[in-house]
Amino acid sequence: MRSIYLDNNATTRVDPEVVEAMLPFFTDQFGNPSSTHAFGSPVGVAVRKARRQLQALIGAEFDDEIAFTSGGTESDNAAILSALEVMPDRTEIVTSAVEHPAVLSLCAHLEKARGVKVHRIPVDRHGRLDLEAYGTALTHRVAIVSIMWANNETGTIFPVAMLAEMAKKIGALFHTDAVQAVGKVPMDLQSTAIDMLSLSGHMFHGPKGVGALYLRRGVPFSSLIKGGHQERDRRAGTENTPGIVGLGKAAELALKFMDDENIRLKSLRDRLEKGVLQRVPDSFVTGDRLERLPNTANIAFQHVEGEGVLLLLNRSGIACSSGSACTSGSLEPSHVLRAMDIPHAVAHATIRFSFSRDSCDEDVDRVLEVITGIVEKLRDGSRSRPRG
Amino acid sequence: MRSIYLDNNATTRVDPEVVEAMLPFFTDQFGNPSSTHAFGSPVGVAVRKARRQLQALIGAEFDDEIAFTSGGTESDNAAILSALEVMPDRTEIVTSAVEHPAVLSLCAHLEKARGVKVHRIPVDRHGRLDLEAYGTALTHRVAIVSIMWANNETGTIFPVAMLAEMAKKIGALFHTDAVQAVGKVPMDLQSTAIDMLSLSGHMFHGPKGVGALYLRRGVPFSSLIKGGHQERDRRAGTENTPGIVGLGKAAELALKFMDDENIRLKSLRDRLEKGVLQRVPDSFVTGDRLERLPNTANIAFQHVEGEGVLLLLNRSGIACSSGSACTSGSLEPSHVLRAMDIPHAVAHATIRFSFSRDSCDEDVDRVLEVITGIVEKLRDGSRSRPRG
Repeated sequence: MRSIYLDNNATTRVDPEVVEAMLPFFTDQFGNPSSTHAFGSPVGVAVRKARRQLQALIGAEFDDEIAFTSGGTESDNAAILSALEVMPDRTEIVTSAVEHPAVLSLCAHLEKARGVKVHRIPVDRHGRLDLEAYGTALTHRVAIVSIMWANNETGTIFPVAMLAEMAKKIGALFHTDAVQAVGKVPMDLQSTAIDMLSLSGHMFHGPKGVGALYLRRGVPFSSLIKGGHQERDRRAGTENTPGIVGLGKAAELALKFMDDENIRLKSLRDRLEKGVLQRVPDSFVTGDRLERLPNTANIAFQHVEGEGVLLLLNRSGIACSSGSACTSGSLEPSHVLRAMDIPHAVAHATIRFSFSRDSCDEDVDRVLEVITGIVEKLRDGSRSRPRG
Repeated sequence: MRSIYLDNNATTRVDPEVVEAMLPFFTDQFGNPSSTHAFGSPVGVAVRKARRQLQALIGAEFDDEIAFTSGGTESDNAAILSALEVMPDRTEIVTSAVEHPAVLSLCAHLEKARGVKVHRIPVDRHGRLDLEAYGTALTHRVAIVSIMWANNETGTIFPVAMLAEMAKKIGALFHTDAVQAVGKVPMDLQSTAIDMLSLSGHMFHGPKGVGALYLRRGVPFSSLIKGGHQERDRRAGTENTPGIVGLGKAAELALKFMDDENIRLKSLRDRLEKGVLQRVPDSFVTGDRLERLPNTANIAFQHVEGEGVLLLLNRSGIACSSGSACTSGSLEPSHVLRAMDIPHAVAHATIRFSFSRDSCDEDVDRVLEVITGIVEKLRDGSRSRPRG
């Protein structure tokens, strides 16, 4: 039985072309790009190429607006902490209630340890941002707005270009955690007012352990990790050159395939959703049906535990998730679904199916083959037990 | 002409066995180790194995004392910033004048931005720490001592076990940047009072972009990068699983080869030093001749510019360094040599030759073949120019 992977919002398989691009940088061109000798210089050239590949993917005006990091979480932390440091007379942060833990955990820490005021803008039951609350939170006390481009659990896309314009008017920096959006959504950052953007290689078939922070030219910045002068003093530490080269290649491939893939993935995703909803009574799709990543389906099943569905899907060779991977293993409903005011019982039983370039029609067929039986079996078991 | 790489303190070639160990984790076992399904769980097992391989190399008591990071610089930053946070009633740092920029840049920033008092313990002309000054700096105001295990430029080894005992007596945390020592020096951390230790994979034939922070059990810690619960809440962000697996394999190989390699490298290094000093008048070895890494030779040539020597060595196919790679390209003498009170003119002309498992007898032969001609040529040129 072929294993089916529908958890691509947790991580993706590295594209074999990406691995091939990385390989020479382990054992052949292994020099430190900061070295001026023959082992170092060519590696610096490869890093520069990767920067341009990433620039093309996100539509940055200049390649030096990209600083390589160890991943999305580091980039998020660096952006927010920097803003508080470079704007010491502003002590508030505006974010959303449905951000990734990389933003929310940091904000909670800053609130507790430094007395920073954090505005967590709510969402409606479709996961759409409350624009009125957003407008109200924007004052001259705000150092940074950090709002994700697309939600990892529901795929809901926020109108970041417009949100950035609003933030600009009050002189706040605008950062977006675009870890789920980069490589899936066409981007042209130079035409926006977005100041900083976080991305992660392993979400679009690049390697884990490498990401980047986009930093618009002229935006003041203080690095999170201090030391050597790498990345123009924006990120110290010897560059992860194989990782950076892999990230660049992954960016090139993502751009090349994006248009066709988005049509194909949306079609797979829609067939999955339609099929599941037809087959399983008391099931529904969560998130914004219009503004949504083409690869993500988050389906709620009433009267069952999500962990039970996941377990039986896993036994059928299908890997997916009940929330973000970062909170897997927990039986708490996800903060995203709670913020959407989805009833507790339902939030327990939402399953995220997320597709990628590696996904195919048979993956959908297999889910549709087994899902009815799985949910019925769990509902039968649940009905036969007395409820507390 | 075979290129000769004698800059292994800047970075090392990844061992092909390490690459082989990493490969399955890009395209086959690519799951997120936080995922509970069949793609995630086996990856978690591999991460655990790597933790034990690293534990064995550094002699930690428990494998969970190791938290994986993106490298030495991040580990250094995390250790120092955490200490200030968990010991808010202590506002001083003790370090040495010859630390890596990962420590010194951060300390300079903390001094300026937060008013932290930093004691930079001087060294003598052999690079040995001033123990009297160290003792004097240790007061109950010190939150953390951060002193490197071995110096990257001269290879000088500091008596960290003793220094840690002294720090313990005044209740300060003791951190050591052991980036140059791990894999080259036998370690048994459980028998010491060292609380935290930074290491980097690419210094012992592991991949770039991955390292670790050793954190003794019971030592209070606040993570630098906040987000998900990875690494037991000590380092958020999806684990760089291929990197971690590679780091583990590199640790295993380093431990296996260490005893024999140390004898072999010391012999290569000593032959190089002896040969150069015999051939080139007005040259001498810097650093502590007794307490020193077996792989490092730092040789000063009077009456020449170090960058000139490097350039001509590079043209002869020999890659080495005039200081740490992080400051390469700069014509400033290194802060390490300045701290050793080596005259300015000499500090400009020190060359670091650093060996590894990949080094061989012919590498030394080649240096000895060309070094006399290179230095003589530069000295002739220098004498024929009027001096300012």
